[in-house]
Amino acid sequence: MQKVNVSLCPQVENAFGILSKKWTGLILNVLIAGPRHFCDLQREVPSLSARLLTIRLRELEAENIVRRVVQTQSPVRVAYELTERGKALEPVLKAIESWAHDWAPNTDVTIHN
Amino acid sequence: MQKVNVSLCPQVENAFGILSKKWTGLILNVLIAGPRHFCDLQREVPSLSARLLTIRLRELEAENIVRRVVQTQSPVRVAYELTERGKALEPVLKAIESWAHDWAPNTDVTIHN
Repeated sequence: MQKVNVSLCPQVENAFGILSKKWTGLILNVLIAGPRHFCDLQREVPSLSARLLTIRLRELEAENIVRRVVQTQSPVRVAYELTERGKALEPVLKAIESWAHDWAPNTDVTIHN
Repeated sequence: MQKVNVSLCPQVENAFGILSKKWTGLILNVLIAGPRHFCDLQREVPSLSARLLTIRLRELEAENIVRRVVQTQSPVRVAYELTERGKALEPVLKAIESWAHDWAPNTDVTIHN
């Protein structure tokens, strides 16, 4: 048994903290494709309540990952888009997507008859 | 505003579901370095309670990401290690770590005096 102590860097702990909130990954996975209105996000992450979507968007704004953009058309509309910090999460989202496709649930279980 | 509808693939939704549980990422980040006893995991993810660590390990076992290995020494000890499916998460963990280091909190905020 290897007894190496993995030192927990605060930035890494913070990153896992942000990404380990329910729905955050799926919200980011929609926004990586481009800006969205609130109702688009609701449609594209269907099981997520409006209340929790609001909370998650505010958390991501506070983390400077998502920004709120007021579109000065009539009627005024609000969209959400990724900041540069948010866009930099693309390799993380792509890696999760690749893993999901390459390793569908229980792909390395050997069944003995 | 781009109106592309991102179709939510069940495998991708499942992957985000697994990884979006509090502490799961940090537990995997320790196990990627090699097998660990329960007490090693407790030491290396210090804010995590024994109860929640047990729950997370069982969830990861059920997902075939972590396996429990009984070491037949005296006294018998139990270790936890990643399965092949778990080891395949390394690119995800590395991508999160890179992002955490490259984009420390609020790195793209411009401060106007």
